[in-house]
Formats: sequence, structure tokens, C-alpha cells
Amino acid sequence: MRRAWIISTGTELTLGQAVGTNAAWLAAQMAELGIRTERHVTIPDDEIAACEVLLQAAGACDVILITGGLGPTADDLTRSALAQAAGVPLELHAPSLEHLRAFFAARGREMPPANRVQALVPRGAGVLRNRCGTAPGLRVELQRTPCYALPGVPFEMRNMFAHEVAPELRAANHDAVLLSRRLHTCGLGEADIGMRISDLMQRGRNPEVGTTASFGIVSVRINAAAPTRAAAEVQLQAEEAELRRRLGPAVFGRDEDTLASVVGRLLASAGQTLCTAESCTGGMIGTLVTDVPGSSQYFRGGIIAYADAVKEGVLGVQRADLEAHGAVSEAVARQMADTAVSLFGSDYAIAVTGVAGPAGGTERKPVGLVFIGLRTPAETTVHEFRFGSDSPREAVRIRSSWTALNLLRLSLQGAPPART
Amino acid sequence: MRRAWIISTGTELTLGQAVGTNAAWLAAQMAELGIRTERHVTIPDDEIAACEVLLQAAGACDVILITGGLGPTADDLTRSALAQAAGVPLELHAPSLEHLRAFFAARGREMPPANRVQALVPRGAGVLRNRCGTAPGLRVELQRTPCYALPGVPFEMRNMFAHEVAPELRAANHDAVLLSRRLHTCGLGEADIGMRISDLMQRGRNPEVGTTASFGIVSVRINAAAPTRAAAEVQLQAEEAELRRRLGPAVFGRDEDTLASVVGRLLASAGQTLCTAESCTGGMIGTLVTDVPGSSQYFRGGIIAYADAVKEGVLGVQRADLEAHGAVSEAVARQMADTAVSLFGSDYAIAVTGVAGPAGGTERKPVGLVFIGLRTPAETTVHEFRFGSDSPREAVRIRSSWTALNLLRLSLQGAPPART
Repeated sequence: MRRAWIISTGTELTLGQAVGTNAAWLAAQMAELGIRTERHVTIPDDEIAACEVLLQAAGACDVILITGGLGPTADDLTRSALAQAAGVPLELHAPSLEHLRAFFAARGREMPPANRVQALVPRGAGVLRNRCGTAPGLRVELQRTPCYALPGVPFEMRNMFAHEVAPELRAANHDAVLLSRRLHTCGLGEADIGMRISDLMQRGRNPEVGTTASFGIVSVRINAAAPTRAAAEVQLQAEEAELRRRLGPAVFGRDEDTLASVVGRLLASAGQTLCTAESCTGGMIGTLVTDVPGSSQYFRGGIIAYADAVKEGVLGVQRADLEAHGAVSEAVARQMADTAVSLFGSDYAIAVTGVAGPAGGTERKPVGLVFIGLRTPAETTVHEFRFGSDSPREAVRIRSSWTALNLLRLSLQGAPPART
Repeated sequence: MRRAWIISTGTELTLGQAVGTNAAWLAAQMAELGIRTERHVTIPDDEIAACEVLLQAAGACDVILITGGLGPTADDLTRSALAQAAGVPLELHAPSLEHLRAFFAARGREMPPANRVQALVPRGAGVLRNRCGTAPGLRVELQRTPCYALPGVPFEMRNMFAHEVAPELRAANHDAVLLSRRLHTCGLGEADIGMRISDLMQRGRNPEVGTTASFGIVSVRINAAAPTRAAAEVQLQAEEAELRRRLGPAVFGRDEDTLASVVGRLLASAGQTLCTAESCTGGMIGTLVTDVPGSSQYFRGGIIAYADAVKEGVLGVQRADLEAHGAVSEAVARQMADTAVSLFGSDYAIAVTGVAGPAGGTERKPVGLVFIGLRTPAETTVHEFRFGSDSPREAVRIRSSWTALNLLRLSLQGAPPART
């Protein structure tokens, strides 16, 4: 399989004043063309750095893409870096100059003199047409490795890649395609998953399997390389089936699925409705649920019961329970879920009360202690979690929200959750 | 000025399955410490590539940061790449093993055997404490260049950088400093701001001024370079004063301030309380308000009134008004704000009803039409906004939430908001 490097230029990128998205977009496009991107390098607007990285790339891969530095100002240095790396001079390219003049004429303006440099190309280079702007792209061979220089403006870059670069790379493709899929899990630790699938994660295996974790959601990534799209698809299917077999009900979705979108589909297809009663999550579960377009079909609403007086006055939690057990307790989570269902007339409710921190923790009720009440048409269960007394506030809130949605998901899928 | 390289690891990044944001965040932090990032390199989960890039970086810069690859699974290779680059073996670090065991114990679980590898460190390496997860960070010298290995999970990475790395780098700073400050505005467009401060934004000027915009919040960034921290601080102060003079009450805060934290400070110092009544934002305003530690001091709670029946049944909106004007209307926003105040017994209320899309828009009430009701101790006002019928759902929801908080902020600061 051909290997690519992607080089992004721009001092605003290296200084962190902007997040570059070109490299990720290009890498995904390359994968579909059966080309595996092995490195992204981001450099400032600096001709020497650009020349050095171009030559390093030429010795290490089969296709180089470089974005940015093709504009008309003093910090646009990709043309001259390419010429230097190729060991050729820059020359005026007459058709490009004509294209530039026509671009401005079509907008009723004369071409500013500064734009003339955009018609300079390294001797022998191919010129890639820019349908959306002034900067033409370039195609140069560096030590026999093809190198495509594209504009940095994402819109122009994508258009040029699609029209000028992808067809050429596709035509040159005599080997494999690389297809990917992600499975998302909740409820198992990353190490636990790693043990269950360690043989599938062995290096050098195809399909390749890897994991990433974030606040209790562990995603398993499958990359399958094969001579044809159909063959790669078969490999993905088989690998997904094997992973699902090993990870069981912890798998809640794949690719763009979220816990909230999966819960939404399950509720909608069952014709059932949901409401929320949130304390420490402060509306986060409602926000996640309503992130999903069409959530009005199954989500009725919720109460953010932040102050204890609201738990008592609006949610009807017994003052005796608040006094005897505290707001963060099994009894209060249960009443929050039960009252919410009556108040909102829904089939399901999730209720959360916990200590998000950083203050408010005690020895008996440390930061990270969270009770999640789940009311279903059949019963109300309450689940106790300890998300770690050293966890930051944000982590406790996100874990609480995802765990609550996951409990609801398991219940809707008919998996009996453990009771407290 | 010291120069840094930032290395990101992860096959999901090189293949374009995720956009890495760690490098940009770290580069911005480094700039504040007076360290100029000159290269970002992203590599797959591949020990040989990691070792090669680490050694290349060690020969080219003064500080190396590497993120990712510290987890417990087979694709976590940063520990061994570092050991290889440093030419030392991996050894078990007993305090880290203890920390790992304690992490799991605090969550009522036993440590899975797979996590044991996270306590392996290259001989002689420093260990950086992870307050939010299991992966300890590492500090290794590569050819006398300090190299810090941080987790890939952004949240853990940021926490560890702030607590373990930044203080060390700050202490070692003996040359020029680059200090930065950000002023945050809401209510003015980026082009409008650009015109008001175009002379300050000229290239090559010191301090350097630039803008970034996100969903209606425009932040103005000041970078001041000076021989000493004190001199840079004086430059920042003067530039901030000039910017505040030109941008007026649109400036709501600086650096880590958010609209929610500023509103929180204003409410707390006035001894007043807030509640919310949200429809299209689905709990997002409550989430933003309760992101702020200590928000229980002034936030009582809220209603997520997603279904119309909830607006009527729980929030007491008149059915006649729902039928005559629709749920997205001035009359409904007003009643939502008024009833919320009585229900929650607070001094202020913000209420939002709108069309978030992508479905549900009509010619008269297009996607992006949002009514925001603001109840203060003195009066209730309703403000109509059109956030664009081609706006994605997420954009409408975020803009609605921030605009609502900004209206409350202006009211608390005594600026009379425009009435509808």
C-alpha cells in the first residue's frame, strides 16, 4: 500500500493560534484512495524548514501533499521551497498569469501586481487549476516522489484535491483500499477491553485494531486493507462481528453513533418517551439528548433541580429524606426519577444527584459519588457510582451523564442492569 | 527564545479519523511561556516512527512535548519509544503502581493486570502525576533536551500540562518572554471589530493583535514580546485598555472568563439568584451555568420544557397563546420567564424558545428564529433573534445559549438592553 506524508504550512498553525483541519481531511481522502498517511508535519512560514521536510518526505514515502504558502504575500514560500528542493529555478508560467488576469477581470478588477508571483512555478512542474481562487496548485517530482502543493484555504484545497489530485492518484492505484470503522463501548475499562481483544490488537495484523478512551467511553477502531473495496468491506464485517461477540452489550454503536442518538432510536422505535431530573449534571443530559435532531419525538423535558429547595418544592422530594440521607442519596435519586415521570407524563426518567466538586465532598460522600435513578415502565432502580474523589468537576459531570444514558440504553435493549 | 516541537501519536490522527487539537492547545500554552513552537509532527502508533521523530526533535529544538500512547493497551508505545530513544530499559516505578492501584480502589474496583504496564518508566525518567486518569506522564532527557510525555486524552493532557509541565518550563525561562492575553466579546461581529481596531492589527506590530470568532463570541488576542515579564505585562495592560476603550461593553471578560463565570460573579456579588426555562437549548444554559464551580450559590435550577404539553402543564403557559402564537413566540418566552421565577423563587430568569432545526422551520418561523425572555426584579423583556436559516442545529443552540447569558450579563451590569 502506498504511503503518504502531509505537510501543512503556516505560523498561525505552529503557534497554536488556529487548529488545522486540512491534514485530517486529506488523510481521510487518501485512505479512500488506498493510500495510507503515515505522517503529518506542520511547519511555520519558513522556506528552509519547508525544503528540509519536503526532502525528508521524498525519502520516506510515495506521495507528498503540502498545503498553504501559495498566496501572493511575503510569507507565501511554498513555490520557492519546492524549486529549491527540486533543484530547479522558478519560471513564469504564461497560462497561469493569463488565468490570474482573467480571475480578476471576471470580478471587474485589475490584477494587483503582487499576484504576479502566483504565476511562478518550478521548472518542469505541472500546474493544478484553482477553480475557487487565485493560487494555482503545483505538481513536482522530488526524487521521483510525486508532490502536490495545494492552497491552504480549506475550501480551495478541497476543490483542487477532488478535481486535480484524486483522479490522478486513483488512476495510479494498482494496489489496495483502506476502509475504517469504529465501535463505541460504555461500561468496560480500556484495559479490560484490551485484554479481551489483545490477539486482535497485535501489531502488523490486518485488519488493524486499536482503542481510544474518553470519560468512560472506549472506542475500538478497525482499519482493513484489501485489494478491493468489496474485500475490505468483508473484512470489516467479520472483524466487527468478532469484536461484538467479545465485548457483548458494552458495544452501543458505531461510527457517528452517540449514546444519546442510540437511546433516541430505541425510544422512538418503541414509541416511548423520556424525561430527566438533574442535579449535579445541571442540564447536561438534556443537552445531550436534544443534540439529536428529531429528539422532540421522544424527549418531553426535564427539571434541573440544583438547589435542595427545588428538589423539595418542584420535584416533591420528602424533606425528611433530604434531612436524613442528604441530597446525594439513593432515596433522593429514587424520588427524583419517580416524580419526574408523573410531572412530565413520560415512560422513562433518568435522575442524577451527586457531588461534582471541587468543593462539597466529605469523607462519607466524597467528590465523584453519584446516584443515578432509572425509572422504567416496570420499576425504579438506583445505581451508585464513585467516579473518583480527585476527578475534576467536568469529568464527574460528563461521566455521570454518559453513565446515565448507558443505563437507560441497556434497559431499553432488555439487558437487566445490576440493582443497588 | 526557546524552540519546541510537539509530537502527537495516534493512528486515528494520521489516518484522518479524528482531528487532533492537542498540538494547537499546547503550542498556545508554550507561547505564553515564551517558547516558540516550530514544528508539529503527527505519527501513527508506531514505536520506530516515534523513536525516529524523538531523536530528530532532540537535535533540533529545546523542549519536546509528545502526547498519546501512554494507555494500557498494545497500541500504547510511547513509553518504550522513549526508552529506546534514551537508550535505557523500562523499569517498574513502584509509586506509580501504587497510584494506579489507589485510582481503581477509589472507584471500588481492582486494578486490571493490563494497567500494570502504565507503571513502567524509562530508567531515570521523572514521573508526572495524572490527577484525572491512570496514565502517568513522563519526563526524559534526550541528548540533554527535556522531553515531556503527556496523555492523549485532551482533558488529562491539559490538566497535567498545567500542573506538572508549565511550572517547570516557566521556572527555566531566562530569555525573552511572550505574554498573551485574550479579551472576549459578545454582541459585535468580527468584521465590525476588525474595523474598529484595524490599526492595532497591522502585521509586524508589537504587541500583535488578532481575532478569532466562534458562534458570536469574538476573542481578541494580544501577544506582547519583551525582554522581561514586567515589560511585557506593561505592554499588555496598555493594549488591553485601548481595546476596551474601543470595544466598550461588548467586552465581557478575559482569558479564562466565560459568559457563565462572569454572570455567576455578578449574581454572587449582588446576592441574587437565577433560574432557567429552556426549550430549544434543551438544558444547555443550565449546563453552562453549572460548569462554574460554586454555582449552587446563585443557581436554583431550571425547567427543560421541550414538549408543548410541558410548557403548558409544568410552566403554566396559556394554551390560548400556544395556539394563537405558537411555541416559538414572544408571548410564550415571556410566560416561560415569568412562571419560572415563581416556580423557583429566584430573582432572575432566562427563557429560550426557538427553532433549532434542521426540521421544523417555516417561512414565517424559519430555522434560527429564537425568542429569549429575560426576567429581572424590575421587568420582563423579550428579545427576538434570527441566527440564520442555514445554520446547523448546534450553531443555533450555542448562539441562543450565549446570547441569553449575554443579555443577563448586560442587565446585571446596568446596561439597558434593547426591548422588543
